[in-house]
Amino acid sequence: MKIGIIMGSDSDLPVMKEAADFLEEMGIPYELTIVSAHRTPRKMYDYAETAIQRGLSVIIAGAGGSAHLPGMTASITTLPVIGVPIKTKALSGVDSVYSILQMPAGIPVATVSINGAKNAGILAASILALSDKKIAEKLCEYRETLTKTILWKADELEKAGYEKYLENMQEK
Amino acid sequence: MKIGIIMGSDSDLPVMKEAADFLEEMGIPYELTIVSAHRTPRKMYDYAETAIQRGLSVIIAGAGGSAHLPGMTASITTLPVIGVPIKTKALSGVDSVYSILQMPAGIPVATVSINGAKNAGILAASILALSDKKIAEKLCEYRETLTKTILWKADELEKAGYEKYLENMQEK
Amino acid sequence: MKIGIIMGSDSDLPVMKEAADFLEEMGIPYELTIVSAHRTPRKMYDYAETAIQRGLSVIIAGAGGSAHLPGMTASITTLPVIGVPIKTKALSGVDSVYSILQMPAGIPVATVSINGAKNAGILAASILALSDKKIAEKLCEYRETLTKTILWKADELEKAGYEKYLENMQEK
Amino acid sequence: MKIGIIMGSDSDLPVMKEAADFLEEMGIPYELTIVSAHRTPRKMYDYAETAIQRGLSVIIAGAGGSAHLPGMTASITTLPVIGVPIKTKALSGVDSVYSILQMPAGIPVATVSINGAKNAGILAASILALSDKKIAEKLCEYRETLTKTILWKADELEKAGYEKYLENMQEK
Amino acid sequence: MKIGIIMGSDSDLPVMKEAADFLEEMGIPYELTIVSAHRTPRKMYDYAETAIQRGLSVIIAGAGGSAHLPGMTASITTLPVIGVPIKTKALSGVDSVYSILQMPAGIPVATVSINGAKNAGILAASILALSDKKIAEKLCEYRETLTKTILWKADELEKAGYEKYLENMQEK
Amino acid sequence: MKIGIIMGSDSDLPVMKEAADFLEEMGIPYELTIVSAHRTPRKMYDYAETAIQRGLSVIIAGAGGSAHLPGMTASITTLPVIGVPIKTKALSGVDSVYSILQMPAGIPVATVSINGAKNAGILAASILALSDKKIAEKLCEYRETLTKTILWKADELEKAGYEKYLENMQEK
Amino acid sequence: MKIGIIMGSDSDLPVMKEAADFLEEMGIPYELTIVSAHRTPRKMYDYAETAIQRGLSVIIAGAGGSAHLPGMTASITTLPVIGVPIKTKALSGVDSVYSILQMPAGIPVATVSINGAKNAGILAASILALSDKKIAEKLCEYRETLTKTILWKADELEKAGYEKYLENMQEK
Amino acid sequence: MKIGIIMGSDSDLPVMKEAADFLEEMGIPYELTIVSAHRTPRKMYDYAETAIQRGLSVIIAGAGGSAHLPGMTASITTLPVIGVPIKTKALSGVDSVYSILQMPAGIPVATVSINGAKNAGILAASILALSDKKIAEKLCEYRETLTKTILWKADELEKAGYEKYLENMQEK
Repeated sequence: MKIGIIMGSDSDLPVMKEAADFLEEMGIPYELTIVSAHRTPRKMYDYAETAIQRGLSVIIAGAGGSAHLPGMTASITTLPVIGVPIKTKALSGVDSVYSILQMPAGIPVATVSINGAKNAGILAASILALSDKKIAEKLCEYRETLTKTILWKADELEKAGYEKYLENMQEK
Repeated sequence: MKIGIIMGSDSDLPVMKEAADFLEEMGIPYELTIVSAHRTPRKMYDYAETAIQRGLSVIIAGAGGSAHLPGMTASITTLPVIGVPIKTKALSGVDSVYSILQMPAGIPVATVSINGAKNAGILAASILALSDKKIAEKLCEYRETLTKTILWKADELEKAGYEKYLENMQEK
Repeated sequence: MKIGIIMGSDSDLPVMKEAADFLEEMGIPYELTIVSAHRTPRKMYDYAETAIQRGLSVIIAGAGGSAHLPGMTASITTLPVIGVPIKTKALSGVDSVYSILQMPAGIPVATVSINGAKNAGILAASILALSDKKIAEKLCEYRETLTKTILWKADELEKAGYEKYLENMQEK
Repeated sequence: MKIGIIMGSDSDLPVMKEAADFLEEMGIPYELTIVSAHRTPRKMYDYAETAIQRGLSVIIAGAGGSAHLPGMTASITTLPVIGVPIKTKALSGVDSVYSILQMPAGIPVATVSINGAKNAGILAASILALSDKKIAEKLCEYRETLTKTILWKADELEKAGYEKYLENMQEK
Repeated sequence: MKIGIIMGSDSDLPVMKEAADFLEEMGIPYELTIVSAHRTPRKMYDYAETAIQRGLSVIIAGAGGSAHLPGMTASITTLPVIGVPIKTKALSGVDSVYSILQMPAGIPVATVSINGAKNAGILAASILALSDKKIAEKLCEYRETLTKTILWKADELEKAGYEKYLENMQEK
Repeated sequence: MKIGIIMGSDSDLPVMKEAADFLEEMGIPYELTIVSAHRTPRKMYDYAETAIQRGLSVIIAGAGGSAHLPGMTASITTLPVIGVPIKTKALSGVDSVYSILQMPAGIPVATVSINGAKNAGILAASILALSDKKIAEKLCEYRETLTKTILWKADELEKAGYEKYLENMQEK
Repeated sequence: MKIGIIMGSDSDLPVMKEAADFLEEMGIPYELTIVSAHRTPRKMYDYAETAIQRGLSVIIAGAGGSAHLPGMTASITTLPVIGVPIKTKALSGVDSVYSILQMPAGIPVATVSINGAKNAGILAASILALSDKKIAEKLCEYRETLTKTILWKADELEKAGYEKYLENMQEK
Repeated sequence: MKIGIIMGSDSDLPVMKEAADFLEEMGIPYELTIVSAHRTPRKMYDYAETAIQRGLSVIIAGAGGSAHLPGMTASITTLPVIGVPIKTKALSGVDSVYSILQMPAGIPVATVSINGAKNAGILAASILALSDKKIAEKLCEYRETLTKTILWKADELEKAGYEKYLENMQEK
């Protein structure tokens, strides 16, 4: 079982890599490539149509502006598709959110936050975790680390006082 | 030379019919059908791919919400595609506008106003008029009528006074 | 494996029932109840904390306005959580979307369209389908029906002409 | 009587410190720490549940994006909770405002302006001032200083003329 | 100690009465009247300036559109001012929210949700509760009732099933 | 000295009549007609170009959607032009506001609130009042009446109590 | 006859100075100072109340965020008040626009574009021009210069070609 | 047959040049100049009125803010007009979009994305391609190149891995 990560343009890669980074951290296999709904529609069809045969279980699709890639992928496969709205220059990603989120009844896209590629990776992992105990365990550990980091920071802040803590932050 | 009118759902028909009505008025042949980007992606692909062979010169595509039909059609054919953002229940068509308008460089969609199917018809006619004198003439006549109607109304209003004119409006 | 459907208020039920309806159609067991992040925070905590033990695999959470239920549930369990932004009176659900969608890195919510409870049900089914062939088959059938319905409508529209078709629509 | 200042992440500290700075100026005791609704939900529950016992009278909570901290804190304690919507990268804090402001009937959050941590501190002080004459006096003095500063600036501007005044501003 | 409830127009009364209703329920004395920032600026000034002498401890101010009443009141008194953004015809209250919320540093307004007059009443009560045990107790009871009502509804829903429950809702 | 009232369509008349009503009340002469920037551009040009000769001193222009009438009129005459953004079906007049308000440096339009035709009339009157004492006096009287009406309503409300007052309102 | 230019803070001065610059250019006397609705409400009342006696004929008021200065000034004087919405950090001036524009019936503010202080100056001049021929002439000259500058630039662009023209622009 | 490219200000030139660049690439003749709806209304009328005689077949008009140029041009000629909403400082081009897009029935503007001048050029070319085989062929080639570029990049990305690919991107 593998995750497919696709994006409409290589300019989305600095954002979308966070999904790949997380999956690597979890030891989950994935494939990552560029598929443009508008510039390579034929490839998109093929990609989505053969996704199940190629062993994919979840597709993470990032796109910005008239962001059609997640929704069109979802319309061609029955796999769960996670959409990442990419922040855009003029509209800050509101255009991407509306294009990805507002799908008609019948074809859902699991939309995450603007530029939320990491969360897309986590969501994909949580889906795989339903039938893979190792991933489930790793996910729990990740969440615990998340909690511990905040608790540790809170502790540091309380001990140092906010002025000292801010100074330390700026030094880093 | 024919115009193709497509829409994502028959619930868009009461809006999209205005494009057809206008083309009829101009004597321009058209075909009208339902093509859903999300529910019939294969048909959409075929529709756009064979559009030129079928003798279409302009495609008018109406869609609401995650409105992918106009942009996807434009990505498969090189014909001019006119997008009609359909007004939606929750977001009043702002979602439709952003989905249709914000296309990436390379694949334009000629977007008209929310629910502006009539204007889509007029725009299509103005494109055909470039190489068809009869349509050009009819279009000029249409515009003159438009002007005359306003001038006539202005005249009526000035003669009747606004209170009387409003009364007459309400009676109709 | 069961789906949990929760909502912040019984006023969300007319929307959220569509998730339940779809799961029934697919033969997927579910539990449905009211859990308010703000009015029953303790119950929400318990609900999310015991979700895995109770045999849930996916949680569908609907909420409107300051819609904290999906995100808070996701922060307490590692199960995939699907958020349904409920349309609101003043802000049409834009408040609900932003509250549910814009989760910080670490805790994703799979957000669907405004009032998109049916799509939440479909998304949940597509997740279960990854390890349940029967659900996968039913989901494929559902999608085929969706496609056929549109194709059939397109056919009817082409045969009847749009004026006749509209008349028939209005008669229904 | 003490004020509790909490925030979802230490990245909010440069904004939230202004609340602490103001309370210091007023001589009002406070505690300041990090509590994340999503990453430390258990701590958030405990924090809010024990707030009254720990001697808190007002809680100032800052959060950005899906900003659940103020609303969830308000749902667990009956103390007045002041919410500070933190400016966000993509949506400039509109997401934070909607998440904090649009609470359901029963659980209010006293929302201040985007990044308005100083005003949160002033609001907290004005609440304490109702039963503490010293704070009331200090608050009056603060307001008078505010007024005097503006009047003094107006005076300087009128005397110097706007061109000279602007020059002086730029020099600083 | 009394609460002042003011509003810019008697058309706000159907909304603002919910603040008064809640205070009555809590046994908290209040005065309620119309004060328009724009049409009775002199009265607004006097109202705010004499508020402390008249024994007010919190002012609840509702206004819509260019909603200046809460902010101007807050600029004239040092009492805590709670602003209720009234829903407007064209902009649904977004104009009211921005006018009330985005106060400059120095003069906070405790803004509640659009049309959230009830929450304004609760917030005022929670402020008085800091120095009035009876109110504190009543507030706790109110919150418990809120919780119980949801739990009871959840129970009813689980027992009846959602279809039966919806039927019962519609009958009421 | 006369006021010109123009609007893009007779569908704007129910709103724009309020400007005329106010001018009548003030005894200020005006002319009122329909001038469409888009459908009668030539007439618009002539209207604006001859406005000064025809004795106009202020032009009030109402328009909705791509509301070009106020700005174009302002670009052809040097008279003060007051723009009234008409509420629109899809975008509630936000489109009208942005079209009218965001004029480039050099060509201002005095924009009033959405559907604020009455305020356009008042603003025009306040301009004429600068050189016409009678209008100035009438304007003062109007403002006093405005104040008195609110004060009287406040009085009634305080005497009757809000429940009784609401009942009386509903009876009317 | 003089123009009053006021602003809520000296941070608005770099924008508001453009109004003064234009009035200087036109030879129109003005006074310019800082008046904060929220921090110097008493001064604002006095300023507006004595405006007519002090010989002002138009007031230009700039403010940002909860921008109450233009509307409150307009509520205290019957002089025409021109509001300049100042661009804000978080909301880009949309908050300022809504606060200034959406005035209730009875009290108009002539709103210009975001940061449109120059246009406020021009609008004020166009109002004075109604009874001052010299200003009227100067205003006409200014407009002609505006036109000539554009025509000259167009000429340059056509002669140089766009690539050369852009180079020249960047050199400047 | 020639394309007319106009813009309201030379500050739009860095964006609008992309339309010219594309037409050059396609070998399509065009003229490019500055025409301001607000500062040169007379020139705009003449430009639009003589467009057909001068041999234009499509007009591309770019404008920002109260962007009246595309719509006004469309109201004077029957040629197809393509509008390019220019990104603005305060409102990011949302004002431009609404001004250009929301045209009334009768006068369409073919709106493309914010700053989408290249797409305007492509759209114009696709219109000319209907009656010019050479342009049609060149357009097909352009689209194929577009596709090949993405496929090539996808290939590179898959071969290099995303980390290496990102490094290479940053080096460029």
